[in-house]
Amino acid sequence: MGCNMENFKHYIPTEIKFGKGVISQLPDVLNRFGKNILLTYGGGSIKKSGLYDEITGLLSSNSFIITECSGVEPNPRIETVERGAALCRENGIDAVLAVGGGSVIDCAKAIATGTFCEGDLWNMVLDSRSGRRSLPVIVILTLSATGSEFDNKGVISNISTKEKYSSVFSYPVVSFCDPTYTFSVPKYQTACGSADILSHAMEAYFSRTDSSEISDGLAETIMRTVIHDLPAVLENPDNYDARANLMWASSLACSGILDYGKLYPGKTCHAIGHEFSAVYDVTHGEILSILTPRWMRFILRKDPSVAPRFARFARNVWNLSGENEYQLAEESINCLEDFLGSIGIATNLTSLGIGSTDFDDIATHADLRGRCSNSYVPLTHEDVVQILNDCL
Amino acid sequence: MGCNMENFKHYIPTEIKFGKGVISQLPDVLNRFGKNILLTYGGGSIKKSGLYDEITGLLSSNSFIITECSGVEPNPRIETVERGAALCRENGIDAVLAVGGGSVIDCAKAIATGTFCEGDLWNMVLDSRSGRRSLPVIVILTLSATGSEFDNKGVISNISTKEKYSSVFSYPVVSFCDPTYTFSVPKYQTACGSADILSHAMEAYFSRTDSSEISDGLAETIMRTVIHDLPAVLENPDNYDARANLMWASSLACSGILDYGKLYPGKTCHAIGHEFSAVYDVTHGEILSILTPRWMRFILRKDPSVAPRFARFARNVWNLSGENEYQLAEESINCLEDFLGSIGIATNLTSLGIGSTDFDDIATHADLRGRCSNSYVPLTHEDVVQILNDCL
Repeated sequence: MGCNMENFKHYIPTEIKFGKGVISQLPDVLNRFGKNILLTYGGGSIKKSGLYDEITGLLSSNSFIITECSGVEPNPRIETVERGAALCRENGIDAVLAVGGGSVIDCAKAIATGTFCEGDLWNMVLDSRSGRRSLPVIVILTLSATGSEFDNKGVISNISTKEKYSSVFSYPVVSFCDPTYTFSVPKYQTACGSADILSHAMEAYFSRTDSSEISDGLAETIMRTVIHDLPAVLENPDNYDARANLMWASSLACSGILDYGKLYPGKTCHAIGHEFSAVYDVTHGEILSILTPRWMRFILRKDPSVAPRFARFARNVWNLSGENEYQLAEESINCLEDFLGSIGIATNLTSLGIGSTDFDDIATHADLRGRCSNSYVPLTHEDVVQILNDCL
Repeated sequence: MGCNMENFKHYIPTEIKFGKGVISQLPDVLNRFGKNILLTYGGGSIKKSGLYDEITGLLSSNSFIITECSGVEPNPRIETVERGAALCRENGIDAVLAVGGGSVIDCAKAIATGTFCEGDLWNMVLDSRSGRRSLPVIVILTLSATGSEFDNKGVISNISTKEKYSSVFSYPVVSFCDPTYTFSVPKYQTACGSADILSHAMEAYFSRTDSSEISDGLAETIMRTVIHDLPAVLENPDNYDARANLMWASSLACSGILDYGKLYPGKTCHAIGHEFSAVYDVTHGEILSILTPRWMRFILRKDPSVAPRFARFARNVWNLSGENEYQLAEESINCLEDFLGSIGIATNLTSLGIGSTDFDDIATHADLRGRCSNSYVPLTHEDVVQILNDCL
């Protein structure tokens, strides 16, 4: 028996425009705010795919004035936030348009709030709270992964202090989610994004609350969707329905909806993973994919009372059957590991050239907000270091 | 193989405050808008349960001025909307507080928009569109059923013209969803509300689009939740977790989220059901519960190509197994009929004292917006009359 369902708050005022060709509505949306647009994006992928030309053409022919903030890093840095906020102030920007995946959107949110903040913007990142003044953020999503298009969070890195912080900014006003924009995402990024979706669903699912049936059922749906549609997309990158399901899965998985009613959703792997990418320039989804099965094996051994939840995971997500719940639990972790080993991303730290040098620091930072010691199965500092060693 | 996923728009800006005791946040929420509150409710049930005293006490001790609009009917009438709107204009109302289930919330939405409309408010109902000026609507939910706490629709009846119309108003700004407020809902209303949730999920689920996996998985989750938790609540009305799951299920089921990506969600039973309650004072969920299995049997026979979808319903919702999809489909309808026969509400029209007199009119009205002829399995006028005769 689990605990009673916990209270929760649902509030996501973002409008999602989902499907082929929704971009045609972009000028109408931007016209609500004004003509001066900060166009935020990463490297050259949107130029190669033609999306950059499509957007700038659409904006120019509708008399918008574009200021560019390009070169947002895969783990966006505070210096880029400073640069973007300065551009907004200098150019009287009316709205920030983010074209990209989670990193670009996170950075755009920080820029939009940072525009109205004085002094060192790293303090603005650390001073995480909702309701701060912000320019409107509009998103054109090109990667199904972090769900930043449908939440108010942004993760910003400070390389000089080796910190990576998830801060609360504002919700995007409108997010344009056209699955065809993800057709050109390379297999590696597609797989990393899906690993991130899967991790969000799993970290919500593994909780002490058994009775929050809708959160659990939706998490199972999202996990099955990734397991079904990621291989389909790796085989045929232009599979519209599979790309569409992954895209909507990413928005829902990371929105908090899967946590509703649940106690200690225990985002242990995300906590450790974020610290990792504060130290190394590793891809978020890849590090989660390495960590998760090791974390699962560790907590199952440390506290076998979690076996029934893993057995449910085995039955409802992996279609396994059997009576012995501990055995089912182990098989479910094998299935997950096999799946993650089949999608073309790293399965251990060694292959990424990462050794144990920083494990102690990473374990310390990961638990700063109790996200390891106060989680599904509480972990000590030594436990976290052990899990990291298991990842080598 | 189904069609490609359809485009969709998601936009539900309502904040849900969910769980035990959330009412304590009511004064803070109302203070955003002003001190003059229209308190809208139905009959005496909130007086009997003590909720009326709790709310008026909370408002009075926080210096709010309450104007009452009580006596909202189970199928709210245009005359009540006129009365409430007049009260808002005369008393300079700042916000409309709806305490009740779908009928009270629907009526409150119509009042909030009607306050700013001149002339016959039935024209305001028929002139269904979003973005109209409205007083803010705040909801305290007492019945898990129509999901009106999480959408912008309201169904208003015009007894003189035998019409019942679902119109677009504004979204509630905040909905307080405390499952303990449904502990005192009698078994009959609890069952009718759950039948409504189930119907919403089924009408979204039975669609030609096979590929919208998240909508389908969520619909299955909601159906399983009702099938599991309604009997639990009928046995023990104070079962918090079961009440909580039904409450969250109702908000999601009717929000449109289950339709995302799907072609012709085909709300045939809702279309017929609404016409029924425009003519007779029957409970919405009860009439849906009578109609749905007959509609299912009829369409399965008329177009056996829908059998695979029913077979999925059989496997994923009713835990049936077997190879013959048509047989599985029939068994799933038997299961549904058995379930609906076990929850203490009417299973045919005759037991409600309804004969065939108005079937022809009802079938005509139900199809006015093509909701029968342009649905999952297109139905002729004669088909609808036949289904109604099967319900006797």
